[in-house]
Amino acid sequence: MIIEAIKFLTRGPADISGLESAMVAGRVDPAAVICIIGKTEGNGGRNDFTRDLAMLALEQLFARRLQIPLAAVSDRIIFSFSGGCEGVVSPHFIVFQQRGQLTTERQPAARLAIASGFTREFSHTEIGHLPQVLETAQVIRQLVAQLRVDTTADVHLVQMKGAIPQYTYNQAQEAQAQGQTLRCDMVHSRAASALGAALALGEISLADLTDDSIARDWHLYSGVASCSAKPGLMRTEIMVMANSHHAQGNLQIAHGVLQDMLDVPTIWNVLEQLAIRGQRQLDVAAQSRIVGVFAKSEADPRGSIRGQRHTMLTDDDISDTRYSRCVLGAVLASVLGDTAIYVSTRAEHHGPIGGGTVAIIAQVDDSETVTNQDGAASESADLANGQ
Amino acid sequence: MIIEAIKFLTRGPADISGLESAMVAGRVDPAAVICIIGKTEGNGGRNDFTRDLAMLALEQLFARRLQIPLAAVSDRIIFSFSGGCEGVVSPHFIVFQQRGQLTTERQPAARLAIASGFTREFSHTEIGHLPQVLETAQVIRQLVAQLRVDTTADVHLVQMKGAIPQYTYNQAQEAQAQGQTLRCDMVHSRAASALGAALALGEISLADLTDDSIARDWHLYSGVASCSAKPGLMRTEIMVMANSHHAQGNLQIAHGVLQDMLDVPTIWNVLEQLAIRGQRQLDVAAQSRIVGVFAKSEADPRGSIRGQRHTMLTDDDISDTRYSRCVLGAVLASVLGDTAIYVSTRAEHHGPIGGGTVAIIAQVDDSETVTNQDGAASESADLANGQ
Amino acid sequence: MIIEAIKFLTRGPADISGLESAMVAGRVDPAAVICIIGKTEGNGGRNDFTRDLAMLALEQLFARRLQIPLAAVSDRIIFSFSGGCEGVVSPHFIVFQQRGQLTTERQPAARLAIASGFTREFSHTEIGHLPQVLETAQVIRQLVAQLRVDTTADVHLVQMKGAIPQYTYNQAQEAQAQGQTLRCDMVHSRAASALGAALALGEISLADLTDDSIARDWHLYSGVASCSAKPGLMRTEIMVMANSHHAQGNLQIAHGVLQDMLDVPTIWNVLEQLAIRGQRQLDVAAQSRIVGVFAKSEADPRGSIRGQRHTMLTDDDISDTRYSRCVLGAVLASVLGDTAIYVSTRAEHHGPIGGGTVAIIAQVDDSETVTNQDGAASESADLANGQ
Amino acid sequence: MIIEAIKFLTRGPADISGLESAMVAGRVDPAAVICIIGKTEGNGGRNDFTRDLAMLALEQLFARRLQIPLAAVSDRIIFSFSGGCEGVVSPHFIVFQQRGQLTTERQPAARLAIASGFTREFSHTEIGHLPQVLETAQVIRQLVAQLRVDTTADVHLVQMKGAIPQYTYNQAQEAQAQGQTLRCDMVHSRAASALGAALALGEISLADLTDDSIARDWHLYSGVASCSAKPGLMRTEIMVMANSHHAQGNLQIAHGVLQDMLDVPTIWNVLEQLAIRGQRQLDVAAQSRIVGVFAKSEADPRGSIRGQRHTMLTDDDISDTRYSRCVLGAVLASVLGDTAIYVSTRAEHHGPIGGGTVAIIAQVDDSETVTNQDGAASESADLANGQ
Repeated sequence: MIIEAIKFLTRGPADISGLESAMVAGRVDPAAVICIIGKTEGNGGRNDFTRDLAMLALEQLFARRLQIPLAAVSDRIIFSFSGGCEGVVSPHFIVFQQRGQLTTERQPAARLAIASGFTREFSHTEIGHLPQVLETAQVIRQLVAQLRVDTTADVHLVQMKGAIPQYTYNQAQEAQAQGQTLRCDMVHSRAASALGAALALGEISLADLTDDSIARDWHLYSGVASCSAKPGLMRTEIMVMANSHHAQGNLQIAHGVLQDMLDVPTIWNVLEQLAIRGQRQLDVAAQSRIVGVFAKSEADPRGSIRGQRHTMLTDDDISDTRYSRCVLGAVLASVLGDTAIYVSTRAEHHGPIGGGTVAIIAQVDDSETVTNQDGAASESADLANGQ
Repeated sequence: MIIEAIKFLTRGPADISGLESAMVAGRVDPAAVICIIGKTEGNGGRNDFTRDLAMLALEQLFARRLQIPLAAVSDRIIFSFSGGCEGVVSPHFIVFQQRGQLTTERQPAARLAIASGFTREFSHTEIGHLPQVLETAQVIRQLVAQLRVDTTADVHLVQMKGAIPQYTYNQAQEAQAQGQTLRCDMVHSRAASALGAALALGEISLADLTDDSIARDWHLYSGVASCSAKPGLMRTEIMVMANSHHAQGNLQIAHGVLQDMLDVPTIWNVLEQLAIRGQRQLDVAAQSRIVGVFAKSEADPRGSIRGQRHTMLTDDDISDTRYSRCVLGAVLASVLGDTAIYVSTRAEHHGPIGGGTVAIIAQVDDSETVTNQDGAASESADLANGQ
Repeated sequence: MIIEAIKFLTRGPADISGLESAMVAGRVDPAAVICIIGKTEGNGGRNDFTRDLAMLALEQLFARRLQIPLAAVSDRIIFSFSGGCEGVVSPHFIVFQQRGQLTTERQPAARLAIASGFTREFSHTEIGHLPQVLETAQVIRQLVAQLRVDTTADVHLVQMKGAIPQYTYNQAQEAQAQGQTLRCDMVHSRAASALGAALALGEISLADLTDDSIARDWHLYSGVASCSAKPGLMRTEIMVMANSHHAQGNLQIAHGVLQDMLDVPTIWNVLEQLAIRGQRQLDVAAQSRIVGVFAKSEADPRGSIRGQRHTMLTDDDISDTRYSRCVLGAVLASVLGDTAIYVSTRAEHHGPIGGGTVAIIAQVDDSETVTNQDGAASESADLANGQ
Repeated sequence: MIIEAIKFLTRGPADISGLESAMVAGRVDPAAVICIIGKTEGNGGRNDFTRDLAMLALEQLFARRLQIPLAAVSDRIIFSFSGGCEGVVSPHFIVFQQRGQLTTERQPAARLAIASGFTREFSHTEIGHLPQVLETAQVIRQLVAQLRVDTTADVHLVQMKGAIPQYTYNQAQEAQAQGQTLRCDMVHSRAASALGAALALGEISLADLTDDSIARDWHLYSGVASCSAKPGLMRTEIMVMANSHHAQGNLQIAHGVLQDMLDVPTIWNVLEQLAIRGQRQLDVAAQSRIVGVFAKSEADPRGSIRGQRHTMLTDDDISDTRYSRCVLGAVLASVLGDTAIYVSTRAEHHGPIGGGTVAIIAQVDDSETVTNQDGAASESADLANGQ
């Protein structure tokens, strides 16, 4: 298995021109694409339709190129779009394509490998409760097993789009009447997804966990989860990214746990794991090795950061979700010198309270990679500049 | 002249409790206070009344403490409040008090000195035009002269609140009918203020400047201006901060010109001018020396940063003013490890297009300062923590 | 007791110029003022400081005029400001002054009478629970008794500003740990206040009510409540307005229960109770009789109105609170031909779900009132126009 | 020519389910559809992608049903979507289908007829200037001529989506350098479109008009224009709706000129032109005759309405465009008892300053129409209810 990751900056949510050009030029093989992760310039909330627009435009493109029905596209490609390019964050998406399968023999170096899958469908009464956590954990374990990693420490990102089945006002009243605590919302869906990852990867044990812990006991968390949630989605979509000695190519992934939204040292630490070094801000050469940055942001729910008050939670004109994406996007961009960053927000059980997770995918160092000088990622940089 | 700067974190725009306690304790002498600069948690726009609330509460306090009429307070103290504590920025204000006058004899080291004044009142047809620039420049020159600096390079911050006389719809129609281009708005008032500073300090020459350059020719700029503008204000309020060999105390000021909102190296460069050093983020000891950070932010009007698209200018739900303050506040906080930062936005003629200015006031290094171990600034840190 | 109500349009939250002029002219007697109800142009949310600014400016005015300490003003005058002048609603306030006491002998006609008071202080665990409802009901009953009405049907408005004691993140965690359901928020404070009114006035009976009914069972409601809630307030402030045969003057009050936000017929019905008639929109003569309009708005929580979808609840850029005030303000203004309307939002237990309450105070018909042609209200119209 | 208009309420911008069902059931013939006008729940601004999403979904549907390429759909069907369903306004669209051509012989009664067309492409320097006005007027005149109306007074709606060619920052700088006043924005594109309609229909004469009048001289206006503008559109799309004695069917159109956003009497007057009568609010029978309501709203640029201040223009958190749509949508819904209303905003040269235009399409009275009891419009009501 060789994973290639190609980044496209967009001119709008429906801008597929760069990707189509890459298909025409043979740099992207539509049949090899396994997932697309990206940011669109919506608000990231319930009335953010930019994600739908991006998906509809991409589904059309793949249906046309692959000569398959529109509805069949999302069965073979996972789309994970997050709305909200606040501040300096540039709308973009990253196309992951897979060549071949995992090798039988162990390779000298571990390389990026990806497995993806779905949970079963959930009911609106399961979301945010233990059944969601357990089912999520089970699917993640299966995906990790597929990747043939040495240890769960080789898993660096579990990207999830969590289910939020729709329900009516009357269904809500009915559930309440039956004494059920309805948690079928973004907060609890993300929280349960993250705890599922923590459980699957041994970051927490089942003994630590009760139904009441969900979105409550912030000491329980995953350091590799990156969960969003989408109203209307019936099942959770999951992608596991790890370094495997049975994968090839020139990409590696690393991650860190942000202690708060200003945790610059942890960002540098992740870069160092990837042998990317710099002073205060990456130079262009170092930047060109990075193909994807995935982070979770959070406005500290205690209302302060570094002991001083922030006002993100009480600004009734702008959501804390938009603020915290803006903050972490700016901090990451200020270190990386690059604005094509995937930050999604609200980090319930993603790192400690007020913190979050960050994972970076990069090309391995040139000195380490002799066979890959024409790699897709360097071409993608040109594509990006071309837009 | 000894300038002391004491920082107060606030619990709301009208929170004067910390300052009043400091007065009671004798750490602040109401009669010595010359200006107060701060951030309140409004939106920074036309319907931001948090600044009025902060001023009204402070005027009451000083009127009571100084036993003077309410209306007399703003004649002796300059208040410069900027609304908008986006993201991690903490609402706070800094009280500057002055002990004594400039010394006749030259001191061995240059220390922070402040002079303040007002322009004459402007008409609504002058704002944004050459008369505003010229009058502003003349007042700045007078203030600089008062400070007895060696050279204009010793001036590091010209903090201004620019006039925007109110006018009616009919007055606007009338001006248009007479062929006058009305520029009586925040953009042009800030632009003319900044060009006034640039002219006064020799950053540009009068020959470079025409009426058409204002808010148009972005090659003309000041590196030390920090201008806001306030609807309803008839005259521009100006504070000049410089290091003077005729001032004493333990504070120094330095500045830098940000090339864009991610210009981390320039922030470190300003710190180094103040002999504050660090790796990736200041440690607590270094942080404690800083008493004020004043910066101007801007969403690059060309719609891109570092060659990639940003969407701050086309988000019709959130103003670019709020975004850019959020971005620069986060970047500064991520370097300084502190969130009590004064960022005000739209940086017309403040640094190059898409860039801005930043000035930092800090206590001089302990090794350098033997006489000041009971200084106000270190106490202010305690006060801040106490809130 | 003669109640006079004088309306002032404002140029900003701190604009007291009209009121001060009226004091100078003798039309308002500071010592007779019992309450001031108004709208300011904030967002009505947690970071709306326009209400604080209005109150601070008014407290200063009364302290100066009455020669009493600032802190003593709010002990003698109830201020009820609501932020959010969305759409066509004009910022304004109405000053109520009281001359004399209720008469011993019964008068031929019932006239507007007002009584006001406070609940005891609440803890953060009581808010939104039965203790808040019961205490609120008890105080309302006392106030109604003071007014000497024939029946509770003569009570037309119970204006309340509900307590929301502040608590820390840790206190919240602690309450949760003790199994307490914390409801110390605006929603539940308003809900409990309204149920308190319903209970006091016999609109519901204690037998109907359990702790679980609060903000849940929407069949229980008051038709005369108008409740807001203010973070930081320890006790609920209550004003009861009724028509009493022991009051004099030329004002009457009436109310209606809006079935939804488009319930124009109910608005006309309230006007008819006051003998104000019109076709499609009031004419100027009819408008001039109205001195105050007080309504509660709500974006129907079921997501539809008149069987068709509305999107107020899922717009993550603009709060439903701002939308619903805008809607009801526009509908009322379109009937009344006047934009100085007090609409406050979220109408939990104020009328049926999706509905709200509306009360109107008007001068009695000229033909009915022979003695009062120089009344305060007609002067207030001039004042308003003068601004 | 028989025009049928069928209304579909939507569950989201991409919801085509109702329309597709109607096609399957034979109530809508894809080949007969000439235009679709609708509201989507975006913000109506530059980052409103709901319109693109609606169009993409509809283009897919028609491409599939008509077996034509996606790109060919917009050549045969005009889509006019307006973002922003503020307040009570329900997202919906109206499909217009045309059966047959205009009759040669004059019919006894005038019925709704529609003609549509495009201007030539504009350059970014023409927008907002006389060339746009003149070209627009010429195309409207041609379309009116096609409709064989007795007089231009029979034209009741000129629905336009105005061109706004995109241009770069550098092109803007260049135009400025050449002394060109760039007006290539929404304000000026709408203004020029509306003046084009006024000129074509004889509401103003060419002698009244100079380049400086555009978006300046508000005495010049059209009473039937309804113009939006779309960034990126190169040519203006125009639909003219009139009552023609050469059209058949059971629909008629009427219009009125709103004097301000509270002009309820004019709304009733339009209804009366259509022989729809009611008291205070239409009853269900009257409502069912209405198939489309098209209005333009405006926050009065003078900052007041009915002599009292409004704050829509100075609320820097919410655009006046959203407020004014919310206000007029609520006022119309409160009269009509229906929330499926098309309100688009900023009404430059659409009615007097602060006012706007409103056009209503309705089925003719039952007593007048004997042949049409199974008409499309009554079925559409069922469809709408079904959703």
